[in-house]
Amino acid sequence: MNLKHASSKSCFQEILSKIDTFLFDCDGVLWQGNHAVLGAPAVVSHLHNIGKRVCYVTNNSTKSRIKYVEKLLRLGFPADKDSVFSTAYTSALYLKHIAKIKGKVYLVGNPAMVEELDNFGIQHFGSGPDNQVTSQDFDEVRSCILENDVSAVLVGYDGHISYTKMIKAASYLSDPECIYIATNEDHRMPLDGERHVVPGTGCVVASITTSAGRQPDVIAGKPGSFMLECIKQTVQINHNRCMMVGDRMNTDILFGNRNGLDTLLVLSGVENQESLDRAAGSKDADLKSQVPKYFMGSIGDWENFVQ
Amino acid sequence: MNLKHASSKSCFQEILSKIDTFLFDCDGVLWQGNHAVLGAPAVVSHLHNIGKRVCYVTNNSTKSRIKYVEKLLRLGFPADKDSVFSTAYTSALYLKHIAKIKGKVYLVGNPAMVEELDNFGIQHFGSGPDNQVTSQDFDEVRSCILENDVSAVLVGYDGHISYTKMIKAASYLSDPECIYIATNEDHRMPLDGERHVVPGTGCVVASITTSAGRQPDVIAGKPGSFMLECIKQTVQINHNRCMMVGDRMNTDILFGNRNGLDTLLVLSGVENQESLDRAAGSKDADLKSQVPKYFMGSIGDWENFVQ
Repeated sequence: MNLKHASSKSCFQEILSKIDTFLFDCDGVLWQGNHAVLGAPAVVSHLHNIGKRVCYVTNNSTKSRIKYVEKLLRLGFPADKDSVFSTAYTSALYLKHIAKIKGKVYLVGNPAMVEELDNFGIQHFGSGPDNQVTSQDFDEVRSCILENDVSAVLVGYDGHISYTKMIKAASYLSDPECIYIATNEDHRMPLDGERHVVPGTGCVVASITTSAGRQPDVIAGKPGSFMLECIKQTVQINHNRCMMVGDRMNTDILFGNRNGLDTLLVLSGVENQESLDRAAGSKDADLKSQVPKYFMGSIGDWENFVQ
Repeated sequence: MNLKHASSKSCFQEILSKIDTFLFDCDGVLWQGNHAVLGAPAVVSHLHNIGKRVCYVTNNSTKSRIKYVEKLLRLGFPADKDSVFSTAYTSALYLKHIAKIKGKVYLVGNPAMVEELDNFGIQHFGSGPDNQVTSQDFDEVRSCILENDVSAVLVGYDGHISYTKMIKAASYLSDPECIYIATNEDHRMPLDGERHVVPGTGCVVASITTSAGRQPDVIAGKPGSFMLECIKQTVQINHNRCMMVGDRMNTDILFGNRNGLDTLLVLSGVENQESLDRAAGSKDADLKSQVPKYFMGSIGDWENFVQ
């Protein structure tokens, strides 16, 4: 097993010597809610100041790139628009430049996704509350008006998810030519030490996937490899000298491992020592593919070495 | 391959000679929406009149047993309460007599499920619209008040499914002692020849399962074997002389095959000749387990033999 603890100064220096580009996940790595992880701004600023390329790579679809830059700067991280890769942006990029979509997009999403689709001049509809139909009665279901010329259904985080939206998405997706794109499939986030759970975009996507009887054609976020394609359109990356830093094994670390990047897991978010040990000790191929090369408690563990 | 076409008189007589108990699925077998399948009432009445035991076994959770009896009688089928096994009833039965539940049930469901839980004197809450929280913001999620003493989460068809309900269900289910029971996982029903799709209970269940990070502990409906336990509490069944008649292979037929019953697929609902041929010709073990012993276009194909 290759798993290395990365908190020591020697390991930090080893990583600095072989990595040019750091891809940071945000929630759980750089911040928790509205608070920066202790020491994280100092560490990331140092990396930036000594000439490392720093990118922010997040599955979160509820903020546009501009909103991300504002939050990063407010919390003390170096940032500009070209350093941010969020799924509201990458899904719009996919629809415009890869799918070269002509018709409209039915959006099960949120205002940040509206903003990014607008930025690309993509026609869309569906955002906001929609709760017309609450029964499986055939006549009521038929009362949902379906628009014509819908070329794609885009699903991200939607706090207004409803049965009506499931009907509409599934109906559009019954046309096999209609593209099904999801921002990400992150499941859930337990609130530390509390009973409350924050369901992720994956619960919205799961409801649409089941209704539609189709898996997404493409996932705009991690662990999908399209996310790396997006980054490479803006940033030159040498895969051998690039590291993904994340808090979630089945997205961040899997994404890094699949794409030949170095990987560092921090235990300040979704995973803990127990879940890491379980993956590291498992013989299951899926779980083994999620084991990082390095791990440490938090990115702030390096703070003493950068002052 | 054993697949036999059941429309002929000789095959009908063969089936009559070896079957004492017929378990009929309802939607897509006996009726479509509010209309009886042509000839179905005459056929089922005949079976009843010549002394066969007729039961109605449905995954639909949106009607109580009493409402089912009313609909069956209205459309011309012989029925009483003891002949109806619907999942609003069986899930309440499970909670009361198998789980012997003490605390409250958080219900992601509908009025029929409320009625059946009330019939068993089970404390419950959660039915109806609930859309307090529409963002993943930690403070907003925390503003969902969680009740104490919740022993089970019951999920069935809920036309008011919302992000708030996902938060609550997932939070209650973060306690491993809390039972997770689902009425059924039926996916969807395309409306014949139309673009509209009717999403099934499975889309509601999928959203909760993903949020909770747990599979249901028990499925009250087909293909789960608890449904057969319920029937056997009321009806004496000789498995060798019992036939499940259904329109859906991954629920009705799988249920029959798993439990050693004869199986008859009708093509008047979810499945068609193409999906049947695909399963019959497949080498996949899952699909093969869903191939019926008999099939025919509709239960009404027997009408001429019963007049």
